[in-house]
Amino acid sequence: MKQTFQKREQGAHKGTFGTGLLLAGSDEMPGSALLAGIGALRSGIGKLMIGTSRFVAGILAGRIPEAMYAHDGLKKVVDGQVPKGMKACAIGPGLPDQKAIEGALQVLFQTDLPLIIDAGALGERQYPSRKAEIILTPHPGEFSKMTGVPVPDIQKNRLHFALKYAQEQGVITVLKGRNTVIAFPDGDLFVNETGNAGLAKGGTGDTLTGMLLAFISSEKDIKSAVANAVYFHGCCADLWDKTKAQRGLLASDVSELLPEVMKNFE
Amino acid sequence: MKQTFQKREQGAHKGTFGTGLLLAGSDEMPGSALLAGIGALRSGIGKLMIGTSRFVAGILAGRIPEAMYAHDGLKKVVDGQVPKGMKACAIGPGLPDQKAIEGALQVLFQTDLPLIIDAGALGERQYPSRKAEIILTPHPGEFSKMTGVPVPDIQKNRLHFALKYAQEQGVITVLKGRNTVIAFPDGDLFVNETGNAGLAKGGTGDTLTGMLLAFISSEKDIKSAVANAVYFHGCCADLWDKTKAQRGLLASDVSELLPEVMKNFE
Amino acid sequence: MKQTFQKREQGAHKGTFGTGLLLAGSDEMPGSALLAGIGALRSGIGKLMIGTSRFVAGILAGRIPEAMYAHDGLKKVVDGQVPKGMKACAIGPGLPDQKAIEGALQVLFQTDLPLIIDAGALGERQYPSRKAEIILTPHPGEFSKMTGVPVPDIQKNRLHFALKYAQEQGVITVLKGRNTVIAFPDGDLFVNETGNAGLAKGGTGDTLTGMLLAFISSEKDIKSAVANAVYFHGCCADLWDKTKAQRGLLASDVSELLPEVMKNFE
Amino acid sequence: MKQTFQKREQGAHKGTFGTGLLLAGSDEMPGSALLAGIGALRSGIGKLMIGTSRFVAGILAGRIPEAMYAHDGLKKVVDGQVPKGMKACAIGPGLPDQKAIEGALQVLFQTDLPLIIDAGALGERQYPSRKAEIILTPHPGEFSKMTGVPVPDIQKNRLHFALKYAQEQGVITVLKGRNTVIAFPDGDLFVNETGNAGLAKGGTGDTLTGMLLAFISSEKDIKSAVANAVYFHGCCADLWDKTKAQRGLLASDVSELLPEVMKNFE
Ligand SMILES: Nc1ncnc2c1ncn2[C@@H]1O[C@H](COP(=O)(O)O)[C@@H](O)[C@H]1O
Ligand SMILES: Nc1ncnc2c1ncn2[C@@H]1O[C@H](COP(=O)(O)O)[C@@H](O)[C@H]1O
Ligand SMILES: Nc1ncnc2c1ncn2[C@@H]1O[C@H](COP(=O)(O)O)[C@@H](O)[C@H]1O
Ligand SMILES: Nc1ncnc2c1ncn2[C@@H]1O[C@H](COP(=O)(O)O)[C@@H](O)[C@H]1O
Ligand SMILES: [Mg+2]
Ligand SMILES: [Mg+2]
Ligand SMILES: [Mg+2]
Ligand SMILES: [Mg+2]
Repeated sequence: MKQTFQKREQGAHKGTFGTGLLLAGSDEMPGSALLAGIGALRSGIGKLMIGTSRFVAGILAGRIPEAMYAHDGLKKVVDGQVPKGMKACAIGPGLPDQKAIEGALQVLFQTDLPLIIDAGALGERQYPSRKAEIILTPHPGEFSKMTGVPVPDIQKNRLHFALKYAQEQGVITVLKGRNTVIAFPDGDLFVNETGNAGLAKGGTGDTLTGMLLAFISSEKDIKSAVANAVYFHGCCADLWDKTKAQRGLLASDVSELLPEVMKNFE
Repeated sequence: MKQTFQKREQGAHKGTFGTGLLLAGSDEMPGSALLAGIGALRSGIGKLMIGTSRFVAGILAGRIPEAMYAHDGLKKVVDGQVPKGMKACAIGPGLPDQKAIEGALQVLFQTDLPLIIDAGALGERQYPSRKAEIILTPHPGEFSKMTGVPVPDIQKNRLHFALKYAQEQGVITVLKGRNTVIAFPDGDLFVNETGNAGLAKGGTGDTLTGMLLAFISSEKDIKSAVANAVYFHGCCADLWDKTKAQRGLLASDVSELLPEVMKNFE
Repeated sequence: MKQTFQKREQGAHKGTFGTGLLLAGSDEMPGSALLAGIGALRSGIGKLMIGTSRFVAGILAGRIPEAMYAHDGLKKVVDGQVPKGMKACAIGPGLPDQKAIEGALQVLFQTDLPLIIDAGALGERQYPSRKAEIILTPHPGEFSKMTGVPVPDIQKNRLHFALKYAQEQGVITVLKGRNTVIAFPDGDLFVNETGNAGLAKGGTGDTLTGMLLAFISSEKDIKSAVANAVYFHGCCADLWDKTKAQRGLLASDVSELLPEVMKNFE
Repeated sequence: MKQTFQKREQGAHKGTFGTGLLLAGSDEMPGSALLAGIGALRSGIGKLMIGTSRFVAGILAGRIPEAMYAHDGLKKVVDGQVPKGMKACAIGPGLPDQKAIEGALQVLFQTDLPLIIDAGALGERQYPSRKAEIILTPHPGEFSKMTGVPVPDIQKNRLHFALKYAQEQGVITVLKGRNTVIAFPDGDLFVNETGNAGLAKGGTGDTLTGMLLAFISSEKDIKSAVANAVYFHGCCADLWDKTKAQRGLLASDVSELLPEVMKNFE
């Protein structure tokens, strides 16, 4: 996958790498937004706008001062006010309000923004055909809810089910867990070999969502953008594993290891 | 003790390591919840749900975004609403409200969750016989209040008193302080040899409570889970002591040293 | 540029290095104030007073406890209450309210404080002649709005346009982007050679603004103060680039690298 | 001074090292309380209780979870409610309200707690004779206000004026600045040789106040406690200076270097 990773253009400015919109975090799950935000910023996004509650924004801003905030951003999107100038959008981490999510998705589907849909925003749903890509990032439990297929069946045949869903729905399907499967609507299929059980802890999926937002906002080829995000996410856990106990890994550590991990690929 | 420490199963997901419920922290003692939370997350818990006030949650979330929050969780438990899907529960650090604590304990005793009872939740009390274990973690001052035995008498005969209490009450008794004693209701007795006077500072007990929650949520054998938590807690202070002044150690440093300390035991 | 960098006088006290006033940050862009604040403190300012909202101050204070706050400081300045004892003032990062900004600038123009004007405070405007310097720090997009010249034209002739503006308006003009141009009203012109595309991310400009505030507050020669701030800002990104991926650089990392970068120049 | 530094007793518990009361911080100067708190905790205090506003406590608790808080603690002290079980008290950093300070001091003078008086709590005042020590920590500007002697005169004759004040008022006088002078009522006089101009930045005095609170709470000999705090405070700046630019030093860095600095003296 590394071959497709672009060198950062030296005459670039922050606009070159795109502005991402992250709709995430709620008063009882504020951390999801923070983890996704750190993931996006450490992955090289140009600018990051986080739509979340004022309470959550107050929590995040001290840790990621590099981000901007749209207070009650989810509600604003539901009302049709999608911030201008975005390059891609991720929705879902730490969002509990299904009605607001559905409303926001209907608005977002009308835009030409690539959409990453994760966590609370994943469900049984038909995806419209549209110009920009939709990327879903379920773990097996979420994929089971989306498809009705029991988890053990999914796990026995991960490639089959991921590909089937990707082709039927026309969405990029990232089926997470050990050896994450990435299935594209055109039949392309990747299996990731990086990562370890240190990632089996709350929050690591949020980190991946932020990384995807950054890679999709800043890279040209969407296939390699998705694959690179998954690949580097796992690499961080593997680098950690060289000197530290897997069980001690936190989702935020993953992001903090990115600058070192990505160094050899720029 | 190390022999019993399990290797992290490579096909694991966060569910494999359990979700712990932490009831801790109040407006004037918010840090206790944070310290216990960091301890739990660094010890490999799958997911962590912290029941605390909204004010306290706002303080914690920037530092441990990996956790989820149940605002006013203690009150919810008193009202019989124990969050679903928990593997174990810890209660006490930074909790001043005795009435709420007693109410919550009555509800928790009815569940089949292993219970870690510490700090504000320790007192003179009869423990019911139930299926899941109860683990008490008093320092000598708290043990004195629980038993009526004066501190100097306890300290002269730590093994005797800890074992007596464990057997009479049917609870695992962790009598803290230099050479922490762990007494089990079946008569088993451990004496810990790790740790140093750097741990003699406010907050280190909260860290241990979080570690216990994680080990009990994620390991199979409860005896080794308890013993490992106490053992590694001390190891961190001993690692610190190699290069830093004992008096400079903070409770949060203990947790941050865990990934390095546990590396050799995975 | 390094030749002009002064050694820190050993008998100095905090008053020796000046107190800077930073007017920055708003509820949806709190981080700009934090980034500028970290930049100022790491660059050796004597004391820092940040005028911002109470909400923003609550976010910043845990991360930069070294600063003092004037709640609603922008409004206070509009009302003519400029805090006493300041050595220089920076205004703009994270400020959206154009009317308040104009009001504050009218008051600040009357003082004898060197003024750094950035971000939200940049616009099409005539600058009064006054005793203390005015320093503007536009990126090409902002410079385009200030001058009416389209970005591509500016970029083709950066030195020309920067110098023209500096001389016509009598202000020091820092035209940012790769090879930042610094143009002085007297015709002096610097082109910076440090920095890289890692800086092409939201927030790095805020860091520079804080650095400028510190160097102007604490150094005697304003030309070298401005040039040094720009130069060291880029050096930090270059030091990062030696071991870490450019895309992983955050604006706050720039400031954290300053103590190491500046070591060889003291 | 180092000779008098005690080894940390290995059978110790947190009570062994005392609980300190810190009255500091206000809504516009919250950081002073944080800096003093970090200083106290890194210096080995047993427990720390910080009396400050709820707003300030919310800012501090994420950074120093090891501390406990008394909301509106200054007001409580004014009302005669001094928290029980304290070993020493420090008052002043970040406190603007002169009336409340005077009220609190009148109450505190009646206790048998050693009192450290700094910053906002320093002023022209007669100190009562009492059993426990009073320690004042003015910089030359504050000492000038306390004594009426102009700063240049003080600076020309630091030992003379510090000793005169100490003897006339019966208080330990720490006259800060390069070569801090410590004068005792019995005529003993120390001049500190550690530290450098990196300390000439807002907040470093707050750090020292916290360190003094810790050393006085935990050490037996008050003379060496005061001298050690001043000595180690400077040592941290000198250690920093070996690899980092002086101007980049922050007050919180001083505290973070303490564990390494004190290692050789335990
Ligand atoms: N055992 C494992 N081996 C490799 N990656 C894992 C493992 N467990 C979880 N992960 C990754 O960690 C993240 C968990 O996402 P989530 O379940 O949404 O929190 C996904 O990227 C998974 O692929
Ligand atoms: N002198 C000491 N040597 C070893 N461990 C200690 C010492 N003092 C305290 N501890 C440990 O630090 C923690 C203090 O808990 P607590 O008193 O609840 O804050 C317990 O785990 C104690 O066993
Ligand atoms: N490609 C680049 N090479 C060097 N410096 C850059 C580059 N892109 C941005 N910068 C610097 O990063 C900062 C961006 O400021 P702003 O656009 O206000 O956030 C300025 O100091 C720019 O000079
Ligand atoms: N030039 C200097 N050399 C050594 N120590 C200094 C210097 N300037 C300030 N300090 C110390 O830094 C602290 C400043 O305290 P304050 O003025 O209250 O913030 C005191 O401990 C001073 O002794
Ligand atoms: Mg997830
Ligand atoms: Mg305890
Ligand atoms: Mg800018
Ligand atoms: Mg001071």
